[in-house]
Amino acid sequence: MRISELSRATGVPIATIKYYLREGLLPAGEATAANQARYDDRHRHRLRLIRTLREVGGLGIDTIRAVLDAVDDEGRSLHQVLGVAHRALAPAPATADPVAQEDVDELLDHLGWRIGPGSPDRVTLAAALTSLRQLGWEVEASTFVPHARAADELAEVEVGSMAGARSRTAAVEHAVIGTVVYGTALAALRRLAHEHRSAGLDIHRSAAGRAAGTPAP
Amino acid sequence: MRISELSRATGVPIATIKYYLREGLLPAGEATAANQARYDDRHRHRLRLIRTLREVGGLGIDTIRAVLDAVDDEGRSLHQVLGVAHRALAPAPATADPVAQEDVDELLDHLGWRIGPGSPDRVTLAAALTSLRQLGWEVEASTFVPHARAADELAEVEVGSMAGARSRTAAVEHAVIGTVVYGTALAALRRLAHEHRSAGLDIHRSAAGRAAGTPAP
Repeated sequence: MRISELSRATGVPIATIKYYLREGLLPAGEATAANQARYDDRHRHRLRLIRTLREVGGLGIDTIRAVLDAVDDEGRSLHQVLGVAHRALAPAPATADPVAQEDVDELLDHLGWRIGPGSPDRVTLAAALTSLRQLGWEVEASTFVPHARAADELAEVEVGSMAGARSRTAAVEHAVIGTVVYGTALAALRRLAHEHRSAGLDIHRSAAGRAAGTPAP
Repeated sequence: MRISELSRATGVPIATIKYYLREGLLPAGEATAANQARYDDRHRHRLRLIRTLREVGGLGIDTIRAVLDAVDDEGRSLHQVLGVAHRALAPAPATADPVAQEDVDELLDHLGWRIGPGSPDRVTLAAALTSLRQLGWEVEASTFVPHARAADELAEVEVGSMAGARSRTAAVEHAVIGTVVYGTALAALRRLAHEHRSAGLDIHRSAAGRAAGTPAP
């Protein structure tokens, strides 16, 4: 198909497709004339993958390139490609208190998870614990255990489904899409569940509390 | 305490504190001289709350202001403040296919969740389903059921713990912090669980597959 047909088939503007071609995210089409090229289903598929990483995952162009390079590199294992996708999705970790870091590392050990010592999400989790403590919450790292159990159950389903893929490319694409799309879906569902659960609960400071001027915690 | 002591106690640079004062995120201190003011524990607490929203939640200044205004507005219920926090955290929803939207709305009905018709996360979830289908995954909205169940269990714990708060201010702060910090922790734990679960699984395209040139799905 021509670039105009590729644009219609995917809903991606021609100018954007040309930008992805220039940036090397999308491989060049087969040249058919001096200024024309033909594109096929693989281009359409790749274009949709780029748009998913962009729109659902909110990733920038450089990050998308890093993820696609890892997908394309046959030398990389699924585990390695997932690592690249994780680093692309993980926010730059904030600063964590060393004690909180130790507590979180212990929790992960205790869970029996095999996690690289340099995983940025170790720091992200410790930074979350640090914040709670600085805000006066007296919490241990075990406050995250329900979340860890839920995450592990979901990861079992998600990673398990990758094993059924037909080829390495299919498996790593599956992994990247799953990480991005199901991650976004989980965050949305958690907010929706909060909305649902808080609808039945309405805490207003009582008249007595207001009169007494009960301070913030 | 003076601004310099407030800075030392929280690790936030004086220039940043002054910026928050100018922007009205932090209330003015008690004036003690022409160019001096005294700050107290409430300032320290508010400053840590701002930094948590900024560093752990990754929120921008305008969004932080909207969340703090909702926290401070005694006329707003917990449910309403959570709504503001959710909208602050939710990414701008991508475009969703109308069929996917209908499927997602049906799923939420089926779960029995009380969700406002205009909740942006309805669209975010439908956009995730749209992306999967455009990439050739033959999935129904029920693909998100494990995530919905996990989200609901966590929301029950999280929203339940808000009910124990001593005052409205404590409850809404608890809700906002919980939404932001535990949301970040859950995302980090999910990536860590993927790392752990994929460590045992190494899919490489087999030699046979490579020779046959098995295409991507």
